Amino acid sequence: MLGKRRRLAILAEGSFTPLDGKTAVGVLRYRPDEVAAIIDSTRAGRTAEACVGLGGAIPVVADVAAAAAHGADALMIGIAPVGGELPAPWRAAVRQAIERGWDVLSGLHSFLADDAELAAMAAARGVALLDVRRPPARRPVAAGRAAAVEALVALTVGSDCNVGKMTAALELRRELAARGVRAAFVATGQTGIFVADRGVAVDAVPSDFVAGIVEELVMEAAQDADVVLVEGQGALRHPGYSGVTLSLLHGAAPAALVLCHQSGRESIRAPRPRPGATLPPPADAGAPVIPPLADLVREYEQAAAWVRPATVVGVALHTLDLDDAAARQAVATAAHATGLPACDPVRFGAGPVADALCVHLEARRRHATAT
Amino acid sequence: MLGKRRRLAILAEGSFTPLDGKTAVGVLRYRPDEVAAIIDSTRAGRTAEACVGLGGAIPVVADVAAAAAHGADALMIGIAPVGGELPAPWRAAVRQAIERGWDVLSGLHSFLADDAELAAMAAARGVALLDVRRPPARRPVAAGRAAAVEALVALTVGSDCNVGKMTAALELRRELAARGVRAAFVATGQTGIFVADRGVAVDAVPSDFVAGIVEELVMEAAQDADVVLVEGQGALRHPGYSGVTLSLLHGAAPAALVLCHQSGRESIRAPRPRPGATLPPPADAGAPVIPPLADLVREYEQAAAWVRPATVVGVALHTLDLDDAAARQAVATAAHATGLPACDPVRFGAGPVADALCVHLEARRRHATAT
Repeated sequence: MLGKRRRLAILAEGSFTPLDGKTAVGVLRYRPDEVAAIIDSTRAGRTAEACVGLGGAIPVVADVAAAAAHGADALMIGIAPVGGELPAPWRAAVRQAIERGWDVLSGLHSFLADDAELAAMAAARGVALLDVRRPPARRPVAAGRAAAVEALVALTVGSDCNVGKMTAALELRRELAARGVRAAFVATGQTGIFVADRGVAVDAVPSDFVAGIVEELVMEAAQDADVVLVEGQGALRHPGYSGVTLSLLHGAAPAALVLCHQSGRESIRAPRPRPGATLPPPADAGAPVIPPLADLVREYEQAAAWVRPATVVGVALHTLDLDDAAARQAVATAAHATGLPACDPVRFGAGPVADALCVHLEARRRHATAT
Repeated sequence: MLGKRRRLAILAEGSFTPLDGKTAVGVLRYRPDEVAAIIDSTRAGRTAEACVGLGGAIPVVADVAAAAAHGADALMIGIAPVGGELPAPWRAAVRQAIERGWDVLSGLHSFLADDAELAAMAAARGVALLDVRRPPARRPVAAGRAAAVEALVALTVGSDCNVGKMTAALELRRELAARGVRAAFVATGQTGIFVADRGVAVDAVPSDFVAGIVEELVMEAAQDADVVLVEGQGALRHPGYSGVTLSLLHGAAPAALVLCHQSGRESIRAPRPRPGATLPPPADAGAPVIPPLADLVREYEQAAAWVRPATVVGVALHTLDLDDAAARQAVATAAHATGLPACDPVRFGAGPVADALCVHLEARRRHATAT
């Protein structure tokens, strides 16, 4: 991972759950062979599978020393807190890892390598502090160039944060690859970068250049792919992150959108309070409501059309809270409500939405041949 | 300006025109007493008034030495190129200014103080390099808090970049103040910061925190104001900057919007090519079209309503290219097309739109008293 073979200890202290341990869960799902242990002292002694339904017998341990005993040789910060700061209690774990000569992989907004103490320790031990959220130095401004690529570009969009946009894109890639379609994944967030070994965490990019960076990523990925699956971020109705979402929509210039949603979620999740935050909590009517899926389909298509038209081709549901029967029902209801193919890509496979992408890909090819 | 009284030489080499010299024009319009000279060797010997219709007899000179002869004691970088880099030929002027012991004020994306050579020179001479685009270290995530302030929050939005959003906000502040309304201006771009001596250049803020920063700025400004006028950025139809626009719309949570447009502009201006840019130019159908103003009104109201409803209360036109009669006609046409009060705030005053804001302010007060 990130340039060399590693045996990761993933730090997920107090948060190794399916919903909070987003980075840990993503890496366990897609690169389990590289995970030696999870560090969460509140769940030590259990297995990863028991905590998050993934990762089999990979052990959950109390600290860096215990992870070392299980063969870990690198530390990954497996949390993505609002604001992205390194929680103070976790510093000790980072220090211990560096002292053992481990590289540290981080997706935090506050860069480990910019921390004077940690940087000095790392330099003294010859270890790398890999901040995958650090934005590239280049500053491209988007101009709709990605709309001209030959590949079919598909962007996952969502009803909210944390509803499965990265996972839907990765599962669609897997499904398309199984059908012999050359499908590329463009990572736009820290977990996606850990999974794909490349990409840019666009939420840390200066806002003027987010669309431009995405445009570059799409054009690069399109060189060797028939379908480019772009990991979406945020949601158009999220008060904090809607701008990131629109930058992706206009920068990637997708022809196809896949709408992601967690079944049962009815309003945008308010950001969790930060330690030391001085702002009062939201004072008025509360978080924005998530409207019916058919309304979201229309909103995303309208917003895309401000620059380039795009079509929502399917719905990817996240049905974690439901049993199998209820999950199947939720998928059927979503399909009925939108008139679109729907799936839970993790639970039942991404087949129906992959089918829709293949239909669009075929139509593009016919169109290209005809003209 | 920015902490002390200064006599500015504004560097606008080769670009001291009404449309390209955006920062220079803004500072000349709102703080002319602090400008000693404009540096543009291609126009040396003329007056500011002759070049941009503003600034009276303030001279345009060829270089830093000539500006010094006119009493300048600080250099302001008066250009905002796409990508924000310091054009190589301008470095010499910055060096000369530092050698003379001048502070340098810059709104570029590349920070002067991070340039090792310039920083060392500045330290040796004891001068300040003031990078107003440097984002604050804090990382707030917006959560709709600005919607709860008592003041009427109004955001200027536009059909494109560079159509007069900052100017409309400043002229509305002036007009409201003349009526005895306590009106605050929130600067969100480098020129606005130079004019207001405070604010944040949101386009340089990591995209996750743009809405949060704007939320903070609005809440702070609302403490001493009846109306908070927020400088908008970009446009929802701009492929490069739409995300910045949406972040402002959801972060500021305005009740009122003022739609800004340059009469006659029919499509989004493509970003100018950067020196050394490796991307091909946009390959397909060209820049997005600017739709009729009534459509833009609906689009901005729809996008606002994803988080909090807002109403477009008026139109501010930029009629630079027209004669007076044609300008009056353009304003009347915009009012007719949208059913809203319209003005050219610079040419004819912001009165009609200020009237509309006063009506909304009065309605809010009645509502607040009644509840």
